[in-house]
Amino acid sequence: MRATLIYGAGDVRVEDVPDPKIQQPTDAVVRVLRSCICGSDLWPYKSRPATEQGERIGHEFLGVVEDVGSDVSGLKNGDLVVAPFVWSDNTCDFCAEGLHTSCRHGGWWAADGVDGGQGEAVRVPQAQGTLVKLPVAEDSALLPSLLTLSDVFCTGHHSAVTAGVDPRTTVTVVGDGAVGLSAVLAARRLGAERIILMGRHKDRTDLGRDFGATDVVPERGEEGIERVRELTGGDGTHTVLECVGTLPALQMSLGVVRAGGTVSRVGAPQYDDVPLGFQEFMNNITLTGGVAPARAYIDELLPDVLEGKVEPGRVFDRTVGLDDVPAGYRAMDDREALKVLIRP
Amino acid sequence: MRATLIYGAGDVRVEDVPDPKIQQPTDAVVRVLRSCICGSDLWPYKSRPATEQGERIGHEFLGVVEDVGSDVSGLKNGDLVVAPFVWSDNTCDFCAEGLHTSCRHGGWWAADGVDGGQGEAVRVPQAQGTLVKLPVAEDSALLPSLLTLSDVFCTGHHSAVTAGVDPRTTVTVVGDGAVGLSAVLAARRLGAERIILMGRHKDRTDLGRDFGATDVVPERGEEGIERVRELTGGDGTHTVLECVGTLPALQMSLGVVRAGGTVSRVGAPQYDDVPLGFQEFMNNITLTGGVAPARAYIDELLPDVLEGKVEPGRVFDRTVGLDDVPAGYRAMDDREALKVLIRP
Repeated sequence: MRATLIYGAGDVRVEDVPDPKIQQPTDAVVRVLRSCICGSDLWPYKSRPATEQGERIGHEFLGVVEDVGSDVSGLKNGDLVVAPFVWSDNTCDFCAEGLHTSCRHGGWWAADGVDGGQGEAVRVPQAQGTLVKLPVAEDSALLPSLLTLSDVFCTGHHSAVTAGVDPRTTVTVVGDGAVGLSAVLAARRLGAERIILMGRHKDRTDLGRDFGATDVVPERGEEGIERVRELTGGDGTHTVLECVGTLPALQMSLGVVRAGGTVSRVGAPQYDDVPLGFQEFMNNITLTGGVAPARAYIDELLPDVLEGKVEPGRVFDRTVGLDDVPAGYRAMDDREALKVLIRP
Repeated sequence: MRATLIYGAGDVRVEDVPDPKIQQPTDAVVRVLRSCICGSDLWPYKSRPATEQGERIGHEFLGVVEDVGSDVSGLKNGDLVVAPFVWSDNTCDFCAEGLHTSCRHGGWWAADGVDGGQGEAVRVPQAQGTLVKLPVAEDSALLPSLLTLSDVFCTGHHSAVTAGVDPRTTVTVVGDGAVGLSAVLAARRLGAERIILMGRHKDRTDLGRDFGATDVVPERGEEGIERVRELTGGDGTHTVLECVGTLPALQMSLGVVRAGGTVSRVGAPQYDDVPLGFQEFMNNITLTGGVAPARAYIDELLPDVLEGKVEPGRVFDRTVGLDDVPAGYRAMDDREALKVLIRP
C-alpha cells in the first residue's frame, strides 16, 4: 500500500510500504477513508533533522474495518470506525479515569512499528478499546466532522473541559488555528456566552464567529492582553484556552486570565518552563490541560456531530488525495490552508 | 500600644506604636488575645534589606472587639473574633466566588497604614466582612486551634481543596512545616486514606502521622521521588500538596505526581518559572493553588475545631509573650520551634 513518510524538515513523501496485517489477536486492520494533517505534524515538518530512513506520520483517520484479530469483539469487517489519536485498551485504570493518553497498554500511531494515519490502511493495536463505530455510510457528508473526533475537536473540547468552561465562565481562546476554532466550538457547546478569540487571520476568525466567538482580538502580546482586559472591565476571563503551544501564546494566556481563573493548554508546548511565579500565585491561577484523551470524549461528542448540532468539520478548507499530501503540508505550513483533509 | 516591627534580616523589634483607632465607619478595633509567627514571616526575616524605618509585621490573630465603626453590623464590643490573613468585604464578586484574597476592597495586614497582627491591638478594615465570631471564652483551651483558622490550617485546606483531594485520591504532602502538617490534617479530614508526608524532622513527621499521614519519606530530590514512586507502584499520587515554596520542593512535587494528577502549591514561590514542559503536558499535569482565601473556609472548618474533631493548634510548640517575639523568630528560623504562638 501507499503511505506518508517524513524524512526531514520540509521533506514528506508518499511511498510504497508493506500492507498492514493482523499481528496480535487484539489488532484490527482498517482501510482509511479519510485522514488529515494536524498542526502538530507541522512541528517535525519545520524542524526534523534529515535522515536516510523516513518514518511514518499521521494520527487522525477514519475508515472501514477489513480484518479483526481473534480477541477483538464488537467489531466486524465492514464497520465504519474512527480512531482517536492515541490507541488504548479502554479498560485499564487510566482509561477508566478518562486518561486514555496514559493507557497502560496504549501507544502512538506512526511509532514503534505501528502505522501512521496518512496512508491507505492502518493496523490498529488494541482495536476493541481504540475504535469507535460510526453509524454512517462511506459516502456520508458527515465524514469530515466525524474525522475531527480523532483529534482536533476532542482537543478543543479537552481544553474547555479541563478549564472548567460552563455557562457562567467567560472564555478567551488563544489561537485561530484548527484547534483554537474547535475550542471556540467546544466552549460554546458547553454553554459559554462570552468567548473572546485571539487571532488575526480574518477568514479563520470569521469561522470562529460562526462557531460562537463573541469578540475577536487580532492584537498580540501586551497589546492583545490590554485589549482583552479592556473587554472584560480590567479583569480578564475566567478561563483561557491556549491552543498554540508557544511561549508567547502562553504568556499572553497568563496575561488575560482573571484572578482565580484557569489556563488550559492544548498546544504541544515548545518551551520547558512556564512563568508562574509570585504574581500568579497571589492570583490563584491554575494551569491545566495537556494532550487530549480523545477516546474519552468521542461517546459524548458523537451524537451532536451526527445530529448536525455542531459542524467541527468546517475547519477543513482543502482536500487532497494521498499523492498530494506533500502539497498539503506545504499549504498548511504556508498558512494557505487551515486544515487539510486527505482522501486516500 | 506595643507591636512588632521588622527592620531588616534578623532584626525584629517590639516597640511602642500609636494605639489603633476607628478611621473608617467600616473599621473595628480588636485587642489581640493570640497571634503567631508564620513561615512566610521568615522570608523577610531571612532577606529583608535593612532600613532605618521599621515596618509592622504579622497577619494572624484572634482577639476581642473593643470598638466598631458606625457601618459595622453583626459585631459588638466584647465579641471574640478571628481574622483571616487578608481583610476583605466578603460581598464583592471575588469574595462571592470564595476568592477573598482578590477582594475588590480588601488588603493586607501590616501594609498601607494597616496594623500588623503581632501586637497588642489591630485596626481591622472592612471589619464586618473580615472578622468571624468565635463562640468561646477568652480562656478557652481551643484558642490555639481557632487561631490556625486565620492562616495555617486554612492554607493547608486550600491546598487539599484545590488539588481535589477526596476519599479516592492518594496524596503526597511536600514539607513538614506547619503548613505541610496542616495539609495532612486537611487531606485526612477530606477523606484521603493514603497520605505520604515528605519531611525529615522526626518530631514534625510524628505529628504528621498523628494528623493522618500513612507514610513518611525523609529522602529528598531524586531519591525522594524514587521512594514515593516505589510506594505507589511506580505511578506517583493523584494529588501533591506543595507546602514549601522553593524550586526543589516544586520539582519534587512534579516528580511524584501521577499522570492526570494535580500539584497544588501553597508555599509562597521563591522562583519565577515552573518546569512544566512537554513531559508534564503529555501527562496532563495540573498546577493549581495559590495564596489561600482563608475567609472562604472558616465557616466550614470552624465547627470541626469547636467540636475537637481536628486539633490544628497542635502545630504550636512554643508560646512567647510580646517582648519575646524576636526570640520566637530566632527559634523558628533555627528550626528549634515549629510554630510560635504569641500571647501579648
